[in-house]
Amino acid sequence: MSKAKLKKLRVIPLGGLGEIGKNITALEYGDNIIVIDCGLGFPNDDMLGIDLVVPDVTYLQNNIQKVKGIVLTHGHEDHIGALPYVLKKLPVPVYGTRLTLGIILNKLEEHTFEVAPELNCVSAGDKIKLGVFEIEFIRVNHSIADSVCLAIKTPVGMVVHSGDFKIDATPVDGEMIDLTRLGEIGRAGVKLLMCESTNVEREGYTHSERRVGESFEKYFEEYKQKRIIISTFSSNVHRVQQVIDLAVRYGRKVAVTGRSMINVIGAAKELDYMNVPDGTLIDIADIKRYPPSKIVIVSTGSQGEPMSALYRMAFNMHDKVDVSTEDVVIISASAIPGNEKLVGNIINELYKKGVTVLSDSVAEVHVSGHACREELKIFHALTKPEYFMPVHGEARHLHVHKELAEHMGMPASNIFVGDIGKVLEIDAKGAYFSGTVPAGIVLVDGYGVGDVGNVVLRDRKILSSDGMITIVAVIDPAYSEIVTGPEVISRGFVYAKESEALIDSIKTIARDTIEICFDRGNDWSQMKFKIKDEVAKFVNQQTKRKPMIVPIIMEI
Amino acid sequence: MSKAKLKKLRVIPLGGLGEIGKNITALEYGDNIIVIDCGLGFPNDDMLGIDLVVPDVTYLQNNIQKVKGIVLTHGHEDHIGALPYVLKKLPVPVYGTRLTLGIILNKLEEHTFEVAPELNCVSAGDKIKLGVFEIEFIRVNHSIADSVCLAIKTPVGMVVHSGDFKIDATPVDGEMIDLTRLGEIGRAGVKLLMCESTNVEREGYTHSERRVGESFEKYFEEYKQKRIIISTFSSNVHRVQQVIDLAVRYGRKVAVTGRSMINVIGAAKELDYMNVPDGTLIDIADIKRYPPSKIVIVSTGSQGEPMSALYRMAFNMHDKVDVSTEDVVIISASAIPGNEKLVGNIINELYKKGVTVLSDSVAEVHVSGHACREELKIFHALTKPEYFMPVHGEARHLHVHKELAEHMGMPASNIFVGDIGKVLEIDAKGAYFSGTVPAGIVLVDGYGVGDVGNVVLRDRKILSSDGMITIVAVIDPAYSEIVTGPEVISRGFVYAKESEALIDSIKTIARDTIEICFDRGNDWSQMKFKIKDEVAKFVNQQTKRKPMIVPIIMEI
Repeated sequence: MSKAKLKKLRVIPLGGLGEIGKNITALEYGDNIIVIDCGLGFPNDDMLGIDLVVPDVTYLQNNIQKVKGIVLTHGHEDHIGALPYVLKKLPVPVYGTRLTLGIILNKLEEHTFEVAPELNCVSAGDKIKLGVFEIEFIRVNHSIADSVCLAIKTPVGMVVHSGDFKIDATPVDGEMIDLTRLGEIGRAGVKLLMCESTNVEREGYTHSERRVGESFEKYFEEYKQKRIIISTFSSNVHRVQQVIDLAVRYGRKVAVTGRSMINVIGAAKELDYMNVPDGTLIDIADIKRYPPSKIVIVSTGSQGEPMSALYRMAFNMHDKVDVSTEDVVIISASAIPGNEKLVGNIINELYKKGVTVLSDSVAEVHVSGHACREELKIFHALTKPEYFMPVHGEARHLHVHKELAEHMGMPASNIFVGDIGKVLEIDAKGAYFSGTVPAGIVLVDGYGVGDVGNVVLRDRKILSSDGMITIVAVIDPAYSEIVTGPEVISRGFVYAKESEALIDSIKTIARDTIEICFDRGNDWSQMKFKIKDEVAKFVNQQTKRKPMIVPIIMEI
Repeated sequence: MSKAKLKKLRVIPLGGLGEIGKNITALEYGDNIIVIDCGLGFPNDDMLGIDLVVPDVTYLQNNIQKVKGIVLTHGHEDHIGALPYVLKKLPVPVYGTRLTLGIILNKLEEHTFEVAPELNCVSAGDKIKLGVFEIEFIRVNHSIADSVCLAIKTPVGMVVHSGDFKIDATPVDGEMIDLTRLGEIGRAGVKLLMCESTNVEREGYTHSERRVGESFEKYFEEYKQKRIIISTFSSNVHRVQQVIDLAVRYGRKVAVTGRSMINVIGAAKELDYMNVPDGTLIDIADIKRYPPSKIVIVSTGSQGEPMSALYRMAFNMHDKVDVSTEDVVIISASAIPGNEKLVGNIINELYKKGVTVLSDSVAEVHVSGHACREELKIFHALTKPEYFMPVHGEARHLHVHKELAEHMGMPASNIFVGDIGKVLEIDAKGAYFSGTVPAGIVLVDGYGVGDVGNVVLRDRKILSSDGMITIVAVIDPAYSEIVTGPEVISRGFVYAKESEALIDSIKTIARDTIEICFDRGNDWSQMKFKIKDEVAKFVNQQTKRKPMIVPIIMEI
């Protein structure tokens, strides 16, 4: 490696689905690499059948001897969820706060590793050294407890990575984002700020988490006679704590339903992030022993997820909870883009059953975990960076964030809207984009990591929209004759019963095509190609559909 | 038919996808039926491969001799789009305003009919008689010109159907909703109000369409040097008119792209709903002859539709328009639920190309066509109905609309939240639900209307998420031996190349299973069942996936 190269800091967003600089980012200097976060994404609509999307860490694997460790900002899936996959390929130490590691431990238990993962616990305020990098963890507010941002001292200057944050002056656990420390770091000089962009299109401030508690209290007061069911993100420990506090105050028992909710409350209690007085929690199986007015149910399913606890309640499929006019359901979340219809379906079903529904379109039962424009401006103003790279957002958010920074007086030439795999280099002379490295996403389907690619997805797309027609014939090439068949089997195409004539025509076309091919002396592969072609033409003419056509010619 | 039955008015919402009383509604009295609107829906995410959803009109077909005609409120797809399908089964006269019929004519041209459709033009203010019903068409404001609501005199009293409406005191074409007439009708006595519920969750008033024009003007002023591309609903004739007016004022030529936009502007110009000075419109092929500052492009694609004009521009696929930093794109629409991601993708692509994008999340470039809560209250207050049936909304909207009516003083017992196919009967004694009739939706896939049902959709769902594995073997039952095969063909499952070992194992399992079946004397169908079972078990164990498994056993 040339000497010049050693003097540069390289900043590389490595993964992220649609969003840039979200799931995973690498900082490289000479023989040192540190990785910030290691999250996953959930598949887009066009990734049919895919379960998860994890980052492509080829670049890190190729430079494995340089990688000093992975530092985490908080315990949400999009920041930690890929760890089980990445640690198998990249067994390096992991650094995170206590709750973050608690959640990770739960996940790692479901996997087996050749090298046992090394998890190192840090607290807000701590500094650690990884190679040439010195990393300080700084408290921020977010929709999960124990979140931090990072101030990373590098040979070219200080890099601040905001993680996910908001400014909450009245947080539920009493710990506000450490603006003072951020101001001190800014005063000492920040070379590069990487700042999240989720809510950059929203004016003003995000409301305090406490506001949600105040809304909840209003409804505990208003619906004293009804059973209250609250559905929220399981990871929002502070919100669940507020529900528990209110339940205690209003003399209600709390029952929990939904696997992730049970897991997270368990972990949070054990790690003392949650305070649940004895006798408050009851088993969901025991709710029928109490009148509705004495019960609160805390549930998963706030994104409308099929088969989640709330979904099962709405569609009469929950084995322990039947909902009725005696229930108030509070959906304490806003639908993540793409989930609007799923959430809407549940709300409709609940209304049909006479349930009172309070969702964020009609009641103040949710606040965002991300900074709006005024909060972002404060972060910029305190850290006063020389260079700025907006991260954690789609292209639209990054560009609007760039405009915000320009509006605050930063020269456009100091702002770098990056892309996945695109390397930003910073040295004594300045900052500039310089090439790309292998990066992107890897699809996880069942046990398979990366074995489903574009061809498979394209086939699934065709199968999903018009189904398939398989045509099988057994031929004897020696005598140029059809031994048996052709048989036609369709799935996902049309009702077989109502389309016998169509299927018969397809058989005839296939038989005729084979005969013609025999006459012409075509071989097996030409025969398959011709059958596919002729049948496709006929089917499209008759039905205006394009099913996948799979001819199978067996020779004896 | 009994005499008692003749004295009842029957109100029947017949179709609608997710929403109730939206696409089509029937009013029946004795031997008289009239149909209000005849619209279609677009498929949900779980209706894989389906193109359109039309109402099930079995009930009307079974009573065809009673049906006097179809009356239309306005020219949107969800109110007229099913006419080509329904008129084939139900050749009855159609009544609508001039623009509504103009749009329908365009549609009918693509279909052939045994009985030529009879289209009758009416104007706001007209009254027509259909059997025992007298129907008055009353002007309303909406996001398409020439919209009306209906006041229907029936033997049991007046029925008012709001259609889709808003109250626009400064409409672009100068015609405001006829509140005076609605008040007169209310004073004379309304038995039943059916009122739309789309925006019942939104407080206050919907802004005037003129507001959009004012925003546009601001951007014509601000971006004088750039080319302006405005994407909106083609049916919003008034909005397109405002763009044309501004173009004339600012000395720009207007080019139109997108098939439906070209069609609607053509129809609207011809029918004098649009005023386009000569020399304003130019062909899209000619835009390169003008500088960016002299061009406005009006485009389809505001819902992010794949392959729409705006989509093609964003993804470099438009053969006439290349977008760049010299463009401002105004997306004058809000994403219909379910389309958020599609619209977001286009915005991201445009940002990546350096285009300035103004969408309704950051600029006031769209207003709704539907009444918000205060407008709904005015409609209720003017018509003063005895009974009320909220329509045109999902269950949540209907229930919130019911609460709004109760809040205005209507007794809960006079409010009827209906369902598709559920009959509301009104007679001298009162109003009550009374049974159901066949109703619902019919799926259109290509040329097929109703030939794709639950089995086909379920298969498409399985195929879409894990693909399929076909196993073919040719056996000789006389000798209990495999003649050739088993062959294994997969699609949408895994990369064939990377999974040779897996495919080989499946072959082995299939062969072993056939041998076992021979030994046990199992027949052909038992053999297929066993192969499916064994292979499914193995594949799930190995991959955690559940592809569709199609065993084909051919006998010679």
